[in-house]
Amino acid sequence: MQKDNGSGGTSTPTARLRRRRGSNEFPPEVDRANGGHLLVNDNTKYKSMLIRTYSTVWMIGGFALIIYMGHLYIWAMVVVIQIFMAKELFNLLKKAHEDRHLPGFWLLNWHFFFTAMLFVYGRILSQRLVNAVTMDKFLYKLVGRLNKYHMVTCYFLYITGFMWFILALKKKMYKYQFGQYAWTHMILIVVFTQSSFTVANIFEGIFWFLLPASLIVINDIAAYIFGFFFGKTPLIKLSPKKTWEGFIGASFTTMISAFLMANILGRFQWLTCPRKDLSTGWLECDPGSLFKPEYFTVPDWFPVWFPWREFSILPVQWHALCLGLFASIIAPFGGFFASGFKRAFKIKDFGDSIPGHGGITDRMDCQMVMAVFAYIYHQSFIVPQSLSIEMIMDQILVNLPFEEQQALYVKLGQLIMERQFGES
Amino acid sequence: MQKDNGSGGTSTPTARLRRRRGSNEFPPEVDRANGGHLLVNDNTKYKSMLIRTYSTVWMIGGFALIIYMGHLYIWAMVVVIQIFMAKELFNLLKKAHEDRHLPGFWLLNWHFFFTAMLFVYGRILSQRLVNAVTMDKFLYKLVGRLNKYHMVTCYFLYITGFMWFILALKKKMYKYQFGQYAWTHMILIVVFTQSSFTVANIFEGIFWFLLPASLIVINDIAAYIFGFFFGKTPLIKLSPKKTWEGFIGASFTTMISAFLMANILGRFQWLTCPRKDLSTGWLECDPGSLFKPEYFTVPDWFPVWFPWREFSILPVQWHALCLGLFASIIAPFGGFFASGFKRAFKIKDFGDSIPGHGGITDRMDCQMVMAVFAYIYHQSFIVPQSLSIEMIMDQILVNLPFEEQQALYVKLGQLIMERQFGES
Repeated sequence: MQKDNGSGGTSTPTARLRRRRGSNEFPPEVDRANGGHLLVNDNTKYKSMLIRTYSTVWMIGGFALIIYMGHLYIWAMVVVIQIFMAKELFNLLKKAHEDRHLPGFWLLNWHFFFTAMLFVYGRILSQRLVNAVTMDKFLYKLVGRLNKYHMVTCYFLYITGFMWFILALKKKMYKYQFGQYAWTHMILIVVFTQSSFTVANIFEGIFWFLLPASLIVINDIAAYIFGFFFGKTPLIKLSPKKTWEGFIGASFTTMISAFLMANILGRFQWLTCPRKDLSTGWLECDPGSLFKPEYFTVPDWFPVWFPWREFSILPVQWHALCLGLFASIIAPFGGFFASGFKRAFKIKDFGDSIPGHGGITDRMDCQMVMAVFAYIYHQSFIVPQSLSIEMIMDQILVNLPFEEQQALYVKLGQLIMERQFGES
Repeated sequence: MQKDNGSGGTSTPTARLRRRRGSNEFPPEVDRANGGHLLVNDNTKYKSMLIRTYSTVWMIGGFALIIYMGHLYIWAMVVVIQIFMAKELFNLLKKAHEDRHLPGFWLLNWHFFFTAMLFVYGRILSQRLVNAVTMDKFLYKLVGRLNKYHMVTCYFLYITGFMWFILALKKKMYKYQFGQYAWTHMILIVVFTQSSFTVANIFEGIFWFLLPASLIVINDIAAYIFGFFFGKTPLIKLSPKKTWEGFIGASFTTMISAFLMANILGRFQWLTCPRKDLSTGWLECDPGSLFKPEYFTVPDWFPVWFPWREFSILPVQWHALCLGLFASIIAPFGGFFASGFKRAFKIKDFGDSIPGHGGITDRMDCQMVMAVFAYIYHQSFIVPQSLSIEMIMDQILVNLPFEEQQALYVKLGQLIMERQFGES
């Protein structure tokens, strides 16, 4: 691997410090502008690490509380994070001197944002609402109607924004405005892909949100620590402070954590049961074979000092290993992408919402890639193999009032009779 | 309305000609560069109109043939158009001197293109395949499996492209590369939004593809003709050759055409029936109440010269009016958007695939907006009101082998019994 000019190669303690993994990286320009002094001072570095640790602890604590409070609160948290991310990213787009001539542009961005929000969450919300009101015929119909016109409403909101954009085009600013339009869409895609998959994961069972999200955090912290103490070989030119030592150490830590965490998290029904309505009450369900412990006895030749003679493994732990592998090998590319982006546009951080961490977006780069993977993995490999009957039964019970269920039953009976009669 | 410098206001025949609606417009810069002579020469203008008419006739003829050949061929046509559009748009992105240093970038764009293709069409294809092979247990399982891993495959293809992009980032070109990445995504969104909705429309019944697409063509041609002969008042600064006269004349023409065309097209089952498999054979179905003619007698006071004493109206004609309204009022904004875009980036046309028309993309600008609307309108207002039972029945018959249908029947019966028993 070619060495990155200035930051790789030597191994004095300072150089090693500078190479440690972290998000408050400076593009070389900024670094040089400060004369390189900022990073040489070890005291400052330890102080910054303290600040960072402090806010990390607060974040993890708050996060645990929200998990305990339930699906709706987690969803709300995702929405808040999303709004902050959009705010940070929209802010990057602004060019003060151009925007002075385009007073409505800021509003237009948020118009698109809330349209996307209505589109993505409207459906999830109304599905749960249907389940919640399925006993009341009037409400049931009302929600059904809302659901029905959901798509067309969102479409017209979008078209309104589209026409607004066109009518607001100003001579000599076309290029700037079209660029803004494209970036706004990119931002919305980034923000909403992530969060819609995240919310879908939450309702499939908090487990499928909590485990992937935690693995990313663990991988981040582990890479930071391993890089801090052992970092020597630069990993990728894009983020000169990431090292192979951090990357590999973090991978192992993440895989082991995934395996252990799945064993613990998989034992709480609060985390493993899907949530089909909008209540925050207690959850009970048949957790399915994935979460049923299988018992193993330790073979006799195992050393005596090993504390357990018998242990139990949940089948879901093997899946957790796949998630861990992804979280440690592929998800970091989300971080590289963000680093490259910041470097390309010569910014240090996306924002300054979290002390010591930069903006919310800086902490979400890998989470995005992970949330999508977790959702797709869950849909492809976890959803029960014989999904068809269960899924259709679910649809029938959830979407049809009782009378229609009966009508369907009669109709299906007739068809089956016909076919049997026709065949024999 | 403020007058556009140089092209509005006066009403000499030449100025009027210059203001006619059309896609081979020159941004003022280009126009002036040619000394304005190009458009003054009436002979050249009529020749260009002839070329344009000639290629229009060929296009319409070929189109009619493809409609006759069936759903699969129409789909193939959409795919071909889509590939041409992507090619034209990707070409715009290229900057020769930058691309010389990035040999793989072109390939990466097409990698994303085919990933999107697999994602969008893979699902449609495998659904139809399931219907085609539902009798053969082995094939049924095979297709089911393909279907199941479809999403995860596409995801990994995308991630591969994503990682490839990151690893191909080159120093000093970050900004250019990130810009390219964003534009590639925008292009794919534009191209695939349109075509996936179009293909969905085709399988809902060719009617729902043919009517909207024709309305756009009619609106385009009518605006061109009305603008050519009566054009006086400029409509919008973005495309100085569009006039209010063209716009209003085209609106009336489109509304009337929509009403009449729906009456004719709505009588062919080939056009109105949905297609649920992949064959190209004849279609038969109950066209539903929307396509059942209602007979009206002309009142006595109607003038004697009026040729019909009785006429029939299909209820779908009222829906056609809505489509016509949209096609003539809102869809043109797609065209304005494209004009503005071309103006912003100082290009005359998106390509030169069709003689006299410019690129394929130039002819598709309004079609995009329309296809999405037609699909959403169909889903929201046309799909039968009591959709639930029929849709679920469909799913059962299509997705489950016969034994599972029986199993479902038994299970549903038990649940209904339980509930009735529990309630009484």
